[in-house]
Amino acid sequence: ADIVVLPGDGIGPEVTAAAVEALQAVESAYGHRFSFNEHLIGGAAIDATGEALPQSTLDACRTADAVLLGAVGGPKWSDPKASVRPEQGLLALRKGLGLYANLRPVKPHPAALGASPIKPHLLNGVDLVVVRELTGGIYFGRKQRASDSASDLCEYSVSEVERVVRRAGQLARQRRGHLTSVDKANVLETSRLWREVATRVVADEFPDITLEHQLVDSMAMHLLSRPREYDVIVTENMFGDILTDEASMLAGSMGLLPSASLGDGKPGVYEPIHGSAPDIAGRGIANPVAAILSAAMLLRHSLGLDDEADCVEQAVSQALDSGAFTADIQGSGAAIGTRAATAAVLENLQ
Amino acid sequence: ADIVVLPGDGIGPEVTAAAVEALQAVESAYGHRFSFNEHLIGGAAIDATGEALPQSTLDACRTADAVLLGAVGGPKWSDPKASVRPEQGLLALRKGLGLYANLRPVKPHPAALGASPIKPHLLNGVDLVVVRELTGGIYFGRKQRASDSASDLCEYSVSEVERVVRRAGQLARQRRGHLTSVDKANVLETSRLWREVATRVVADEFPDITLEHQLVDSMAMHLLSRPREYDVIVTENMFGDILTDEASMLAGSMGLLPSASLGDGKPGVYEPIHGSAPDIAGRGIANPVAAILSAAMLLRHSLGLDDEADCVEQAVSQALDSGAFTADIQGSGAAIGTRAATAAVLENLQ
Ligand SMILES: CC(C)[C@H](C(=O)O)[C@@H](O)C(=O)O
Ligand SMILES: CC(C)[C@H](C(=O)O)[C@@H](O)C(=O)O
Repeated sequence: ADIVVLPGDGIGPEVTAAAVEALQAVESAYGHRFSFNEHLIGGAAIDATGEALPQSTLDACRTADAVLLGAVGGPKWSDPKASVRPEQGLLALRKGLGLYANLRPVKPHPAALGASPIKPHLLNGVDLVVVRELTGGIYFGRKQRASDSASDLCEYSVSEVERVVRRAGQLARQRRGHLTSVDKANVLETSRLWREVATRVVADEFPDITLEHQLVDSMAMHLLSRPREYDVIVTENMFGDILTDEASMLAGSMGLLPSASLGDGKPGVYEPIHGSAPDIAGRGIANPVAAILSAAMLLRHSLGLDDEADCVEQAVSQALDSGAFTADIQGSGAAIGTRAATAAVLENLQ
Repeated sequence: ADIVVLPGDGIGPEVTAAAVEALQAVESAYGHRFSFNEHLIGGAAIDATGEALPQSTLDACRTADAVLLGAVGGPKWSDPKASVRPEQGLLALRKGLGLYANLRPVKPHPAALGASPIKPHLLNGVDLVVVRELTGGIYFGRKQRASDSASDLCEYSVSEVERVVRRAGQLARQRRGHLTSVDKANVLETSRLWREVATRVVADEFPDITLEHQLVDSMAMHLLSRPREYDVIVTENMFGDILTDEASMLAGSMGLLPSASLGDGKPGVYEPIHGSAPDIAGRGIANPVAAILSAAMLLRHSLGLDDEADCVEQAVSQALDSGAFTADIQGSGAAIGTRAATAAVLENLQ
């Protein structure tokens, strides 16, 4: 299998290196052959080529079996007057590959509950997946800037809503059969469209699952007060961005959470939900778990290697059980670094 | 002082009645004269007049000294095909009175920490105010619907951002001097405008306060992991909607949180941040505290009666200290109802 690696900026290179090591361990343990080809994206690409997503990177991704991504962005490229930004590379990649469904599973690990701001008794048994629409909405609508005003257009078409709800429905069917669709239908026209389409798709194609609608503001609350009640949550791009960062607190640290961005063909893009964390970049202390679990999702969703994916996830669980915590989880006390945390996972991957 | 009361729908009438009782207790304790005039808004107004905000209601509000509002909405008026919705009344009221700054203070009460999903040690000393822009952004931009798509336009002008940042700056100056401005400047054009204007207004007019920028997704996280670090948070309409509902969980229940919506002239509108809660409407179990604390904000911001406002807030604190909890805080065990909870507050208001 041909895997494109896009390390990106900040801690991106450190955590993708760990994920590649995990995939290599799988290679030798199971006798697979993966090739890893690195390409530029984000600030690193801007520095080298002037573009946040060089055509050569996009081309390489298009013909790959899967893409493993680190993170993009950092203060160096954050001048508001800059004509090109690292984030544009990420958005162009998502759009260019048609990755309309971003799966963000949140399943707090018992050993890491101490790191969560949420009371532990609320977290027992939490196991949810947010399916975030990733190529539409206000992120991609027309942007305008005049001297004394600015605007962003939020747009959704019926087919954009249909396909992501369908993907979420399939996932719900494989899980506990419960789908929560999040919108702001009491105010937004796009949300009323969203709600109508979600209702129809589930009624027509998923009569076996239950569908509940939630307003985004209530959802921001209920995600904290009753996280156990959710199975699959489907929502539009911007709401998904906010709610998944919020949901990451259930797990204790963003450093633990992977994601898969999927379209109708291959390849998918697999990346931690955390950012480039410029404040800790290069210090060897970033948590590699989110990237390693992203590699597990890659094995499952793009390569169809379910056993191998399970095995990586188990190895991570065992490492966490054994107390192999980076600083984001441990506080600053006896935390270990990226390399030691990676080694603790690899140990269980022989 | 002429106070217009807009009970609205669901639990709105129950909680505004409690707030009026609290204001009447202040009247007699301090020898003031308040007049209370009820008008229709929301679903109740739709039923009676076909409109969510009858002109007579808006006119009465315009000439009043302050407006006390309950909540609007409910399943009865939620048909997606309905041509008029209760929420439109609320939005038209905010717009019609020019209430561009919505202040939502969050200061968890020690006695209610048990009700919060957040670990208590993170909540000690939390005392923040979200200033939500209330008459702009995607709530009020052009909405379009075609057969196969829909759109909502998010727009901000420089002056819209200036005035709300200025209001937040003034508040920060009276408090701990720290302002956090929340946007999504790495993706949205309106957010880049927001960030530029916020930076300039604070540099020019508030050199004595500190300004920090946060992306909305990170904010959704940090609000939970380090709530103590925030003083005043200013943000646009939609982000404010989501973040304040999330922040309500710090206090344990939405039923505890008041708000003030202010423009440049009078009157302000004072309302709980909770909604109409149709599921518990008419059962006499709604928490009156958010409405009573909204009345305290009314005394302070519209009538300039600071001592009286302090006195109401203290009465609420004492009632909570004494364990006078409604079901939203207590669970369903030994909870008291709306009337008893109101009486527990009034007792301390003689
Ligand atoms: C970097 C940014 C453009 C991105 C987003 O908002 O989608 C990030 O926050 C994420 O969630 O993947
Ligand atoms: C009812 C609704 C329109 C309103 C809003 O979104 O502003 C409510 O959620 C609020 O926060 O006051």
